[in-house]
Amino acid sequence: MGLINYPSRLLENAVNEFASLPGIGRKTALRLVMHLLSRNPDDVRRFGETIIKLRNEIKYCKKCHTISDEEICAICSDRLRDTTLLCVVESSQDVLAIENTRQYKGLYHVLGGIISPVDGIGPSSLNIDSLEKRIREGGITEIIFALSTTMEGDTTSYYLYKRLQKYNIKITTIARGVAIGDELEYTDEITLGRSIINRTPFVSPA
Amino acid sequence: MGLINYPSRLLENAVNEFASLPGIGRKTALRLVMHLLSRNPDDVRRFGETIIKLRNEIKYCKKCHTISDEEICAICSDRLRDTTLLCVVESSQDVLAIENTRQYKGLYHVLGGIISPVDGIGPSSLNIDSLEKRIREGGITEIIFALSTTMEGDTTSYYLYKRLQKYNIKITTIARGVAIGDELEYTDEITLGRSIINRTPFVSPA
Repeated sequence: MGLINYPSRLLENAVNEFASLPGIGRKTALRLVMHLLSRNPDDVRRFGETIIKLRNEIKYCKKCHTISDEEICAICSDRLRDTTLLCVVESSQDVLAIENTRQYKGLYHVLGGIISPVDGIGPSSLNIDSLEKRIREGGITEIIFALSTTMEGDTTSYYLYKRLQKYNIKITTIARGVAIGDELEYTDEITLGRSIINRTPFVSPA
Repeated sequence: MGLINYPSRLLENAVNEFASLPGIGRKTALRLVMHLLSRNPDDVRRFGETIIKLRNEIKYCKKCHTISDEEICAICSDRLRDTTLLCVVESSQDVLAIENTRQYKGLYHVLGGIISPVDGIGPSSLNIDSLEKRIREGGITEIIFALSTTMEGDTTSYYLYKRLQKYNIKITTIARGVAIGDELEYTDEITLGRSIINRTPFVSPA
């Protein structure tokens, strides 16, 4: 859909704002804006104020760099978490994804990106110094790399491995293998190959 | 994705607002919110203020009921439009869609819905009295129905036809037929049937 002559500047401005979001085209933006017009004004005011407040007041945890409402996030300040385990992730979204599995009780460290020379992101742009500092402070016995299985993810894992090797800690990475529910014939060869190399003892269900 | 334990109430609130929009799930909402966090605060403030302003200040044209910034919309107040033609549509979005074709220079009348007994929408819920008033005021020589090709759309067209028949005006409906680029074998029989009945003289291209 090309240029539209909107009958209203107010409408056009709102459509432009929504269309500036990733994955939202002009048609979808228009649909969302028309929906907002059908809602009551208090609802829409709360919507607008919520995102302004989020952007102005959000903090990043001083320890792990996850999104947080406080100086120290809810995970880092939770006394029930296992402080000997540290899981290294790219972003706060990855923290949410892992938290959502309810399988991990350790702490996190958000790198804030991944090494990508093409995009000009080197190790110094990432939260690696603070990671090393946390390790030097002691108490951590295992670092788990939970980075994407891409060239950049693997490069970052390898860089971190080389840099953290000198500390007396266990360094692991999350398991790569055939996803639950996936059929073997549609699994790519690299994943399937890794899943054979890293095979685990069979556990009988129930 | 089930319940997530967000590390931030601010984040959770913003995700909830986006997830309340039609067609936006929680994962998409989170992606949009994370994107807003990466934008500069002034941008995000403008986004929030734009939608609040839209909802508070939007008007509906007193003549044709299209979304408008003024009491009378830009189309109704445009002296270059053909005031003898009136196109009846369901919503302001349909006005935009037709304007976007750049093929129509008449005026519009937005019904604000479509007759749908199941949803409790009868003729009295729609802008039909004001439509009749515009016709009685004179000057209009043709009414074009541009409603959806659904049971409700056809019912509404038929109802309007019966009600407006008594006025000495031409009543037409937009052409139904095989869409440009569509292949015949994949066109449903009703559309194909109508396209044969309503066939038009062949015009040689160039």
